[in-house]
Amino acid sequence: MMGVRLNEEAKGVFIISVTPFRDDGALDLDGVGQLVDFYIERGIHGITILGMMGEANKLTAAEAEAFALRVLGETRDRVPVIVGVSTPSLAAMRELTSKVMDHGAAGVMVAPTPGLRTDDQVFGYMETVAETLGSEVPLVYQDYPQSTGVALSVPTWKRMVDALPSLVMLKHEDCPALAKLTRIRQGEMAGEFRRVSILIGNGALYYPEELIRGADGAMTGFAYPEMLVEVLALMSAGKVDAALDLFDAYLPLVRYEQQPGWGLPARKEVLRRRGAIASSRARYPAPSLGTEGLAELDRLVSRVHRRLEQVAPDHARAIA
Amino acid sequence: MMGVRLNEEAKGVFIISVTPFRDDGALDLDGVGQLVDFYIERGIHGITILGMMGEANKLTAAEAEAFALRVLGETRDRVPVIVGVSTPSLAAMRELTSKVMDHGAAGVMVAPTPGLRTDDQVFGYMETVAETLGSEVPLVYQDYPQSTGVALSVPTWKRMVDALPSLVMLKHEDCPALAKLTRIRQGEMAGEFRRVSILIGNGALYYPEELIRGADGAMTGFAYPEMLVEVLALMSAGKVDAALDLFDAYLPLVRYEQQPGWGLPARKEVLRRRGAIASSRARYPAPSLGTEGLAELDRLVSRVHRRLEQVAPDHARAIA
Amino acid sequence: MMGVRLNEEAKGVFIISVTPFRDDGALDLDGVGQLVDFYIERGIHGITILGMMGEANKLTAAEAEAFALRVLGETRDRVPVIVGVSTPSLAAMRELTSKVMDHGAAGVMVAPTPGLRTDDQVFGYMETVAETLGSEVPLVYQDYPQSTGVALSVPTWKRMVDALPSLVMLKHEDCPALAKLTRIRQGEMAGEFRRVSILIGNGALYYPEELIRGADGAMTGFAYPEMLVEVLALMSAGKVDAALDLFDAYLPLVRYEQQPGWGLPARKEVLRRRGAIASSRARYPAPSLGTEGLAELDRLVSRVHRRLEQVAPDHARAIA
Amino acid sequence: MMGVRLNEEAKGVFIISVTPFRDDGALDLDGVGQLVDFYIERGIHGITILGMMGEANKLTAAEAEAFALRVLGETRDRVPVIVGVSTPSLAAMRELTSKVMDHGAAGVMVAPTPGLRTDDQVFGYMETVAETLGSEVPLVYQDYPQSTGVALSVPTWKRMVDALPSLVMLKHEDCPALAKLTRIRQGEMAGEFRRVSILIGNGALYYPEELIRGADGAMTGFAYPEMLVEVLALMSAGKVDAALDLFDAYLPLVRYEQQPGWGLPARKEVLRRRGAIASSRARYPAPSLGTEGLAELDRLVSRVHRRLEQVAPDHARAIA
Repeated sequence: MMGVRLNEEAKGVFIISVTPFRDDGALDLDGVGQLVDFYIERGIHGITILGMMGEANKLTAAEAEAFALRVLGETRDRVPVIVGVSTPSLAAMRELTSKVMDHGAAGVMVAPTPGLRTDDQVFGYMETVAETLGSEVPLVYQDYPQSTGVALSVPTWKRMVDALPSLVMLKHEDCPALAKLTRIRQGEMAGEFRRVSILIGNGALYYPEELIRGADGAMTGFAYPEMLVEVLALMSAGKVDAALDLFDAYLPLVRYEQQPGWGLPARKEVLRRRGAIASSRARYPAPSLGTEGLAELDRLVSRVHRRLEQVAPDHARAIA
Repeated sequence: MMGVRLNEEAKGVFIISVTPFRDDGALDLDGVGQLVDFYIERGIHGITILGMMGEANKLTAAEAEAFALRVLGETRDRVPVIVGVSTPSLAAMRELTSKVMDHGAAGVMVAPTPGLRTDDQVFGYMETVAETLGSEVPLVYQDYPQSTGVALSVPTWKRMVDALPSLVMLKHEDCPALAKLTRIRQGEMAGEFRRVSILIGNGALYYPEELIRGADGAMTGFAYPEMLVEVLALMSAGKVDAALDLFDAYLPLVRYEQQPGWGLPARKEVLRRRGAIASSRARYPAPSLGTEGLAELDRLVSRVHRRLEQVAPDHARAIA
Repeated sequence: MMGVRLNEEAKGVFIISVTPFRDDGALDLDGVGQLVDFYIERGIHGITILGMMGEANKLTAAEAEAFALRVLGETRDRVPVIVGVSTPSLAAMRELTSKVMDHGAAGVMVAPTPGLRTDDQVFGYMETVAETLGSEVPLVYQDYPQSTGVALSVPTWKRMVDALPSLVMLKHEDCPALAKLTRIRQGEMAGEFRRVSILIGNGALYYPEELIRGADGAMTGFAYPEMLVEVLALMSAGKVDAALDLFDAYLPLVRYEQQPGWGLPARKEVLRRRGAIASSRARYPAPSLGTEGLAELDRLVSRVHRRLEQVAPDHARAIA
Repeated sequence: MMGVRLNEEAKGVFIISVTPFRDDGALDLDGVGQLVDFYIERGIHGITILGMMGEANKLTAAEAEAFALRVLGETRDRVPVIVGVSTPSLAAMRELTSKVMDHGAAGVMVAPTPGLRTDDQVFGYMETVAETLGSEVPLVYQDYPQSTGVALSVPTWKRMVDALPSLVMLKHEDCPALAKLTRIRQGEMAGEFRRVSILIGNGALYYPEELIRGADGAMTGFAYPEMLVEVLALMSAGKVDAALDLFDAYLPLVRYEQQPGWGLPARKEVLRRRGAIASSRARYPAPSLGTEGLAELDRLVSRVHRRLEQVAPDHARAIA
């Protein structure tokens, strides 16, 4: 089976999928179809699995593979699927990559391994990754220093883009990062280096600014993928104020879901309420929201709905 | 000169003051009166200076002292002033503390020094700090692990509150921290340990949730102190929805100012536009906002005003 | 198959085994028998595999399991085998543990997962680990904050020892740690908490001091296990000066092998020269020693031999 | 007063001076003359003050200045003095630098400020430092990532050496660092960039290897400066084995003093015993050696003496 390969032209919303567990903590493979359909029905343009928000590092190797193959099977090429394969073991990275590419993945995402320090080390690592995975495997660089501790400079990015043809996408979630995004787009426009797709992360907290600065879409996991999709559509149509009205209506919840650690159970709870997954269970370590947290979600969601009725009544009806 | 000393009953908005520089980078002592008046006219209940957002670590010891004494002089006991005195040198901490307390400061704020690891080390450090500064100096603990790398557990907090009578306030800006705030309030209500004042930070990004969970106010530096003040007043009056309407109107800007690194020049630029300071200059290292950043601020502020006209027209007129 | 289970009485040298690769980077399973025999013939009392020095995080899950089972098969209960099972995924930890315990491992070693901060978090993690693995699996706590970023306090150690009966050993490689070792031994002697086995790490750089302060042996990977064994024997026999003479003779090489990053290829090269492994290959990332590094090893080994002929001629002959 | 300025030709042992305190913790300015004489009488070629081992960050700004001026006064140009001026505040760095250069310092040492990440950031910081301090102030770059978290790559070093003429020395204490030292010397010999002085740190733990790879001497603080001086002299005279015999005799103590945290009180205690300082007091936080630690020092020093009598009887007499 061979799906479409990811390339530099990629645009849109690649939703970061949660990994569904049953209430007993077991992987909920049977729930994967429902989750994939939920996302696709919300208009997303791609799915990214086994990211950090996807609790990839809490799975066994066998579970990760089983989940990935199930997602690929359920997606049936309706949208491209990117698989997070970051791990300190290049052998394990190659193994998982080979398996998912054989089953139709569009590409893989790699975050630089913690401990890299100088520009040369970052470049050297990604060069080794690209060689290890093979030139035919489209590669997404996840720039997430808040988690990895590894910073990406624009000169290193240029060097990687020049040397590694399989590198087709930047997942941009450095923070602060607005200036870097602008510098990369300027460098591309000046012909200094190849243009690649840039999708933004950070829970979409800076989504409007990043789109205006030239991002091609989002790769993040907000529980209302409709917002991510429609903000992009409105921005692309030049309707900036409408896009901002929609974004701002959701912002209190965006901000809440973006809290480190706390955001994952919050997001899973909203997805459960929306019917995307059967259980909001997250694997250890994950905080319990408690009655206060659940009340906060109630209030946030209720206010988002109320606000949407004012600024985007069609949208409000669609998500009701 | 002796001002009112801070105690456990403290409530309200203690604005984190920026430190004003001239365009050439020199400390703008002559601008201090204008800045202090700006804050006080916005209704704040206290001022905190020489915090991290106050660029304390970019000043010489002499500049820090001169700035603190000028703020104390200009404030003239209209509101209490808390002085950040964190530094690896206990001798320097004692020196600055002694000077500012002699000139009317209400208390000092200390963040645990980087490198502390175990609960015993955190407690031991604060015990040493309290002994070094003397029991008559009211102490604020700044819980900001994103910057210090030092985590505070509830058992350690209980231990400090029990052993250190001069500890009267927690600046709460751990993230995620909602659960910790609730656990501390529960412990106090159950009589497990002394109740102290809790003011929240993190750029007020989680302000409503933290107030509902029992915070006594805010100690942060948003460029519209009016929002911080009025949200607290509305919440205290039980007008939760009105408070949230006001908060949500400002949230796009709150979020923008809260970006690490990027937030400081953004905040200084808004304060400059509002007439609080003469120059938005920040000392190295500080990014330049660039034309894109300035345009983002224009759009954000303009939209905040527009939204306020809808949800809080009186407030909108007041800040116009 | 069931081997002897590790318990609190464990003493001796548990050598940290390297993981042998072929020159092409593939796991050298066929070389495992030779390596195990090499270690056992040098008099070691146990073997620890899949530690950090064992490049555990560069293996696939299948490779790690295959290597562990091969070591267990080749060891044939001649000495106990401890298996490092640290991984962020509790599910993967349980899976590997279950497999190796079924095949005769004596116990497993776990380092706290990076990101734990407070005493409660460290305890909570190890409590969860102990529950996940089951009470019948002997557990070694690896205290290695230089790598994990997680510090262990004596109160937390007491709490773990009290609550977790399966915790039978501390691998002590905090640095500085001499005072902590003494405090733990004092606490045990005062009856404050259960006495467990303490084996030391840090490449044996502080081995004599740690033995005198009460350690029960070493769990580290020096390329001359004979030194570790004989220093312990001499110390146990009260021959402190003879023990120190032997240790000091090797110290220039001990120090060299203990360099972070650089130590692994150095150790593998010495082990290759000694016939323990067929190739000194380490997996990426591992520095090349270069001609300078190889010359340094030549000089160091030659001088160790010369010195041993003076202070321990029998020992010198034995390793010749 | 104007002393000799440091330049790229610097060779020898620049001893890292401790900062002497009285038993009550006050700065012991009256003891400075004795300490400076102690060092100079041992044959050192320069003195470095206010380094990390010098407890610089535990002093007030006034204490740091007073200590530096006293050292300069007592040294009276017998040897050059380098002053550590690292601090997050460029204004404070400029102030201290200006003062000590006016009083005869030979140059200043700066470690990159924590938080720098990419090569560009490291370069940009040092460029700003060099501009801030002025081109006439000789600059030493302290490459100590174990403490600063900032890594230095060879390309960044080249870039700094090319752009910053006042940069005349590298204090080399990255770890592992042997390969980097070799690469820098190779780059210089190939004419790729300007040759500067390289002095080594890390408590001299890798001193012989670093000298053989091309270091010009040491900048570290071992309590027997005679060893540092004589090892260098022997190496320079081509007497490698004699140099190694001497180094190895001291190595057990070198290793002991090099323990993070623990090394400082150990070193101060030995210096006190040797009459260099009146009190071994270190400022908080500093562990107490306890009876065990003092006994360890007794044994180590006694064995060093015994060994020296065998391998270097003249040296043994000189230090007796």
